[in-house]
Amino acid sequence: MDVIVGGGIVGLSVAWRLARSGRPVTVADPAPASGASHAAAGMLAPVSEVTYTEAPLLRLGMAALRRWPSFAAELAEDAGLPGAVALDFRTNGTLDVAFGADDLAALDELAAFMEKLQLPVERLTGRECRRLEPMLAPAVRGGLLAPGDAWVDPRRVTAALLAALDRLRVPLVRARVSELLRDDGKVAGVRLAPPDVPAPALADGGVPRRLRAERVILAAGAWSAGLAGVPVRPVKGQIIRLSSAQPLLGRCVRGTVHGSSVYLVPRGDGELVVGATQEEMGFDTRVTAGGLYELLRDARELVPGVTELEVADVVAGLRPGTPDNLPVIGPSGTPGLTLATGHHRGGVLLAPLTTAILLGEEDELAALCSPGRFQEIS
Amino acid sequence: MDVIVGGGIVGLSVAWRLARSGRPVTVADPAPASGASHAAAGMLAPVSEVTYTEAPLLRLGMAALRRWPSFAAELAEDAGLPGAVALDFRTNGTLDVAFGADDLAALDELAAFMEKLQLPVERLTGRECRRLEPMLAPAVRGGLLAPGDAWVDPRRVTAALLAALDRLRVPLVRARVSELLRDDGKVAGVRLAPPDVPAPALADGGVPRRLRAERVILAAGAWSAGLAGVPVRPVKGQIIRLSSAQPLLGRCVRGTVHGSSVYLVPRGDGELVVGATQEEMGFDTRVTAGGLYELLRDARELVPGVTELEVADVVAGLRPGTPDNLPVIGPSGTPGLTLATGHHRGGVLLAPLTTAILLGEEDELAALCSPGRFQEIS
Repeated sequence: MDVIVGGGIVGLSVAWRLARSGRPVTVADPAPASGASHAAAGMLAPVSEVTYTEAPLLRLGMAALRRWPSFAAELAEDAGLPGAVALDFRTNGTLDVAFGADDLAALDELAAFMEKLQLPVERLTGRECRRLEPMLAPAVRGGLLAPGDAWVDPRRVTAALLAALDRLRVPLVRARVSELLRDDGKVAGVRLAPPDVPAPALADGGVPRRLRAERVILAAGAWSAGLAGVPVRPVKGQIIRLSSAQPLLGRCVRGTVHGSSVYLVPRGDGELVVGATQEEMGFDTRVTAGGLYELLRDARELVPGVTELEVADVVAGLRPGTPDNLPVIGPSGTPGLTLATGHHRGGVLLAPLTTAILLGEEDELAALCSPGRFQEIS
Repeated sequence: MDVIVGGGIVGLSVAWRLARSGRPVTVADPAPASGASHAAAGMLAPVSEVTYTEAPLLRLGMAALRRWPSFAAELAEDAGLPGAVALDFRTNGTLDVAFGADDLAALDELAAFMEKLQLPVERLTGRECRRLEPMLAPAVRGGLLAPGDAWVDPRRVTAALLAALDRLRVPLVRARVSELLRDDGKVAGVRLAPPDVPAPALADGGVPRRLRAERVILAAGAWSAGLAGVPVRPVKGQIIRLSSAQPLLGRCVRGTVHGSSVYLVPRGDGELVVGATQEEMGFDTRVTAGGLYELLRDARELVPGVTELEVADVVAGLRPGTPDNLPVIGPSGTPGLTLATGHHRGGVLLAPLTTAILLGEEDELAALCSPGRFQEIS
């Protein structure tokens, strides 16, 4: 049996694909789908996220995005939902906008770089941007459209994954894994921490104290460091969910305001997600006055109409950042221990690719994510 | 029997004082202590709230503030709480600060005006302000200290009022009053709306559909207009509650930033309330992106350290504003109908005075609040 440590979008996706292929799996998480996946905006935007130094990440992202349509369709089917629309999977692209002359110059450079990589992008004037998105601020002077970028509602995805796992009768143990059980140099299972609040006595004797496993797959995000020395650190992100009767935007919009990057992700039900801060604060998930202030300030600059929207939810999550910004996927040096963590800002995008790598379908890309590049892991 | 319509701080205070004096009373409210009182910051600051045109309001406020210490002490005793400290009643004063030269000039004028009214205020330099409140922004150039101003936690006050009423066995009917029962030109009771969600069947037959009363006291805040033509309108206020381990401030701090007034009210437990917007939006209690943005922006200007604080709560309430900004307290022209509403931004401050007026202890001030000044009431 495989024990998957972590019930975020990565752990649940891995569990689903393994269970679907006939493998017996168990997921352990004290509160599934409540961490970084719960806070994520769900942009599937490898193109608009590209930076000059991260060609490997772009390759991973493009491969992951190609897998998303079938991943969404199969997941919706397995969850018993009416098609990929149930996940709010949308493919209208991302529009990256610029305000000042410096921003415009940076956009031109980025466009040239992307064209060299043969990425499908389109350079737009301010007027063209507003024609696409009439709610954009009049001060927007130009933009870069990545028409192939997509997005999805991560909360719907994790809910669908939980439904699919339930249908596949995959056990979900609601407990925190306190350590890996090691036996003669191998990982042989996990130890479970007692619950903080005692549960009422259960007919089956409650939560077990340990789970034996042939393989432990560590998908514990920012908490993976404490369990197996994976060099991940928590990168705090705060987001705001606004709600409106009518959608304000037809596609994802992003821009750099006051030197900080902000994005707006519209949902089919009128929700508009504003994200996200990037803070190195350790294991701190407080929503702060300063975090909200910056998000609201920057969102107003991009789309002044957000002012009128209702604040539906504010939440902070911890992304698992790695030293090279690439995820850590595959067998570790220790027998019995496999890793699926370190996805940083890309957990939602990379979830389908992560499962494919673990199932041996992407050997070339797997090399980019190899745990072997970090000595600390054990 | 008196039926009191409205279980906010005014209605509950009136019910408590009447019940205490031996009068049989019943309170009707679908959700007591959840409206404007729940959103209020609790400043008891008649001096720092003074404006040039509102001498009558200042007189009411000063008289109300004088009543607060004994009101708080007696309430705490009746509620079975350990003294007025249980209400977080504090008397450290309010500091009104200024940034620019224009602000300073306005502060000088206000100081002169207050001295003419023989109000106890003290004009401070920026340095003196920061000596009192070290977390103030370096840009603060001067201030006006009103050392007699006080504040209280309105949520603790309404909780204490509910406890005191419970001990006095005052019935609390959790239903909305849909109309006043009229009988031969007199008000003779109230009709109760059926609950939105049916309550489980109760032993006593559930909520009655009407309550007969010798006197109906209307304390329904912004909802008083619909019941008896009182010319009140809802004035929306949004506030943010921040939490910190250590209190950032020792007293209430207020200031005008970008032309809008903001105040910060510290609680004993480290909570810091930032208020409040003033919006004419009808019966709209949505917390909006724009409202939060303005509060956070202005609070940061006053006290930059708020940036680090956790956002504990965001809430909007509706103040009952009147055409002349004065409350409407006393018998109406219609026999059987008494009013205690229209307190606008002063409900918490004026609650003790309101009860005194209704008990006939403040005839001179009662004249300022007389319902007779509005013809619309019936």
